[in-house]
Amino acid sequence: MSSAEPYLAQDDHAVSDAALDTIFRGARTLRQWQDKPVSSALLMAIYDLMRWGPTETNITPARFHFVVSQEAKARLEPLLDEDNRKQTMSAPATAIVAYDLNFAHTLTKLAPRSAERLSARLAKDPEKARFMATRSAGLQGGYFIVAARALGLDCGPMSGFDREGVDREFFAGTPIKSYFLCNLGYGVEGSVRPRAARLGFDEACKIL
Amino acid sequence: MSSAEPYLAQDDHAVSDAALDTIFRGARTLRQWQDKPVSSALLMAIYDLMRWGPTETNITPARFHFVVSQEAKARLEPLLDEDNRKQTMSAPATAIVAYDLNFAHTLTKLAPRSAERLSARLAKDPEKARFMATRSAGLQGGYFIVAARALGLDCGPMSGFDREGVDREFFAGTPIKSYFLCNLGYGVEGSVRPRAARLGFDEACKIL
Repeated sequence: MSSAEPYLAQDDHAVSDAALDTIFRGARTLRQWQDKPVSSALLMAIYDLMRWGPTETNITPARFHFVVSQEAKARLEPLLDEDNRKQTMSAPATAIVAYDLNFAHTLTKLAPRSAERLSARLAKDPEKARFMATRSAGLQGGYFIVAARALGLDCGPMSGFDREGVDREFFAGTPIKSYFLCNLGYGVEGSVRPRAARLGFDEACKIL
Repeated sequence: MSSAEPYLAQDDHAVSDAALDTIFRGARTLRQWQDKPVSSALLMAIYDLMRWGPTETNITPARFHFVVSQEAKARLEPLLDEDNRKQTMSAPATAIVAYDLNFAHTLTKLAPRSAERLSARLAKDPEKARFMATRSAGLQGGYFIVAARALGLDCGPMSGFDREGVDREFFAGTPIKSYFLCNLGYGVEGSVRPRAARLGFDEACKIL
């Protein structure tokens, strides 16, 4: 292979095989956590990395509320599906990954050239705002998980919770809506489930 | 900082600062491409990496159709917004990132323990299937962009195209729906726009 394809050639490239293991191949969803805290500085470092990932017109609609204190955990606990409670209550931090339906108010900062025109369109079309917010927040959710892993954390993303309940409890009176949850911390070695299968290239992809 | 926080301590960690630049901090959306092809092997390597990223109940609904041949490009061209045409026609490859609304048919392989129960629920609730498919395909779109960058490629993600037109042209008679496009290749140095701003931690996050 030529140097045009650094992965295959294993040279001249900043992302090592070990790094690819850390962010993709060796990473696993964790459900048991060591009793080891995650500092505010490290939570900030995750955001500081993932915020550079691309979104449509740079709208970056994702919002991250980190549940760390015992008081905040107590508010979250009853809103979790039964089988997510133990793992979440014992995690050092849980991110509520959410999106801001009123991301239009940030556009003068984020996308000054498009702000006026796009804000006017969004004001008339809440379904467009919802579609844009969820699509880009999904991408940002992916960046978030990769960034956390890259910084040495294990992740435990979860969809089993009462979304409307979380919105009432944490985002009442705001245009912010919860999307998924992600436990963060240092997993207990040997506690992961057997690796689930993935689709082969030919099952998920086509080259046209 | 203790060794619990490898990013801040800069030691004992597989993901180097240079790698973080490659996948996040230094990466930019490209719109001008070198005349340098991207091989099928490299497209397969992107999928081979990103497919390990987590999704809800391991449903992995994202589908990737890579537009590479002149024939396929000619089918895509009229469906692009005017200002995305030149950059897309000159890119060596364009991924149509899509999702399979009928991901239920893959669950016996991907999530055997949940397959029967979840398939029955999805059959009765197409809106749940759509929500699950788009949320997880969004995460997978994020993994895809990170994986392509990690393998040395530049990305040019785009939302400016006729989604229904692409679905008719490329996915007629299937439950697959387009979500966004992503040009792939080697960008022309010095061709990127000035870096757009991002929200600060306090504007997008809270620690509770």
